[in-house]
Amino acid sequence: MSEDQTRGPGANAPAHPAPSVTVIAGGVGAARMIAALLQVVPADRVTAIANVGDDLELHGLHISPDLDTITYTLAGEINPETGWGLRGESWQAMESVRRYGGIDWFGLGDRDIGTHLYRTQRMAEGAQLTNVTAEIATAWTVGIRLLPVTDDRLRTMVTLAEGDDAGREISFQEYFVQRRHDVAVRSVRFEGADKAYPGPEVLAAVENADRIVIAPSNPAVSIDPVLAVRGVRQHLEAARHRSVAVSPIVAGAALKGPAARLMEELGHEPSVVGVARWYAPIAATLVIDEADADLAESVAAEGIQPVVTRTIMSQPGVAASLARVVLEPNGPQP
Amino acid sequence: MSEDQTRGPGANAPAHPAPSVTVIAGGVGAARMIAALLQVVPADRVTAIANVGDDLELHGLHISPDLDTITYTLAGEINPETGWGLRGESWQAMESVRRYGGIDWFGLGDRDIGTHLYRTQRMAEGAQLTNVTAEIATAWTVGIRLLPVTDDRLRTMVTLAEGDDAGREISFQEYFVQRRHDVAVRSVRFEGADKAYPGPEVLAAVENADRIVIAPSNPAVSIDPVLAVRGVRQHLEAARHRSVAVSPIVAGAALKGPAARLMEELGHEPSVVGVARWYAPIAATLVIDEADADLAESVAAEGIQPVVTRTIMSQPGVAASLARVVLEPNGPQP
Repeated sequence: MSEDQTRGPGANAPAHPAPSVTVIAGGVGAARMIAALLQVVPADRVTAIANVGDDLELHGLHISPDLDTITYTLAGEINPETGWGLRGESWQAMESVRRYGGIDWFGLGDRDIGTHLYRTQRMAEGAQLTNVTAEIATAWTVGIRLLPVTDDRLRTMVTLAEGDDAGREISFQEYFVQRRHDVAVRSVRFEGADKAYPGPEVLAAVENADRIVIAPSNPAVSIDPVLAVRGVRQHLEAARHRSVAVSPIVAGAALKGPAARLMEELGHEPSVVGVARWYAPIAATLVIDEADADLAESVAAEGIQPVVTRTIMSQPGVAASLARVVLEPNGPQP
Repeated sequence: MSEDQTRGPGANAPAHPAPSVTVIAGGVGAARMIAALLQVVPADRVTAIANVGDDLELHGLHISPDLDTITYTLAGEINPETGWGLRGESWQAMESVRRYGGIDWFGLGDRDIGTHLYRTQRMAEGAQLTNVTAEIATAWTVGIRLLPVTDDRLRTMVTLAEGDDAGREISFQEYFVQRRHDVAVRSVRFEGADKAYPGPEVLAAVENADRIVIAPSNPAVSIDPVLAVRGVRQHLEAARHRSVAVSPIVAGAALKGPAARLMEELGHEPSVVGVARWYAPIAATLVIDEADADLAESVAAEGIQPVVTRTIMSQPGVAASLARVVLEPNGPQP
């Protein structure tokens, strides 16, 4: 036993130890939320449980867009021009694919392809996605613990609503990228959810977190697939009092992507009130933007405590203050 | 029926129609031999039956090095610096793989990766290697018909002979690339050969060829795997009188790669005489280099007709004259 340890437990801990935070995460919005949290919490106190429902197998590669968006963002290497993939990309492989008339609607930069090559090879060798994800995050010196919600196969499937395609079910990326989410949706299904078990550290990361943050990701296709994995929703329900959601909807619109449109098409109100209804079973608090201050009472009526603040993280100074609100929605503790 | 056709069969054919040529092919040496033949025969008269024993699955990709070397060479796009892969390559994907500590001993340029992405995706969709190979060759406007010897899985496996690795069996690319063929070999085996059937056009391409050319490839690991596919050796034996082999050994050494060393390690004489013994059952003629003129009688004693000429195709003017000799080893017909 070292001299320090003989002084008794906790003697060297700071007066206010940093809380442990677990983020329920999709892609872009979650990556920004985690980056904001890292302005006020040490990285080794942060865990992200990430969506894998938008993973795909293409060209023989296992591609995990949400995991990679989080990793690349936290590494400071996300491609600022595209919002996905890596900085400084070249596109030679896709040029070759195009020469052959191959599938080119899902853009893969050459640097990014290296990530998928590595992941695919490791999984072919028998490694679990959880381990490969940690290896990739470590290589980018991402300090947080990044956990795919499951090592099992989970795929978000979208059934189209209109025209010749009405009733046709396609994969999430076919909906999101190939059709640029510019089609009406009838329903969403998480293929494999009944057989998908949480990754080895997932449920403990919910149980043990001082604070759970539901990131401002798309509720229908980024957060819901995480909840669909066996036991995750129940664990989040049990931890509801420690959980804060951040609304991805501001003034009735999504900051990015089809969240508002999808909510409406799936029969939900595309507003912070609809978000409140969606998350009330698993979160005690909903952070909404100042633009929605007039809806705070309606949010409260859904059984979730509204907290109004600035939430648009692309605006200067907003990210860190949003992170502080998320960690202590009822104000700083004495 | 068109007017031309009413004139009777062959009326429009040239007096001496170009012979149909089928080349039994490995990689680099075969690609050069085919390019030489194309100086004297129209591309649509040429078929190559190519080795797939050195194919590999790596990073989830199906890689066919010999097929690609032939395609890229005939397209004029082979990388002159490496002798494999494409011109104008970048290496960003491999840089990423290296960041993760992934497998980097098998070099894959970004442009080249696009070929493997396309091939792998098409095969995942259920396409046969024969069809995918034709699609890739067409995209590069390679005029010949390029046939993988089989659509089934065939893998050249090498058993090492010395030191701690004695008795260990590794894949061909582990031998050839990872260990730079700088290890002693005890034996070679073609995994899957007993269940590998020739591709749909392979046996007919042997039966119907006016001239069969066994390219100056490595007999042990490039030509033998082609012969190991069910029925191919028997068809070549039956076509022996139409078949010419070109020696890959000149003055007791291989022009490239480990052919001489491998022949010796496998118990064969590493000379044109050893090549003669190897090919006598399937070829009536063996083209040997002027440097081996003194061995012509020993070649003849093996039951195969020697033809002496210049065979080193990297020397100016040699390729076309070698091609003419190969097509008419007994001199021009009257």
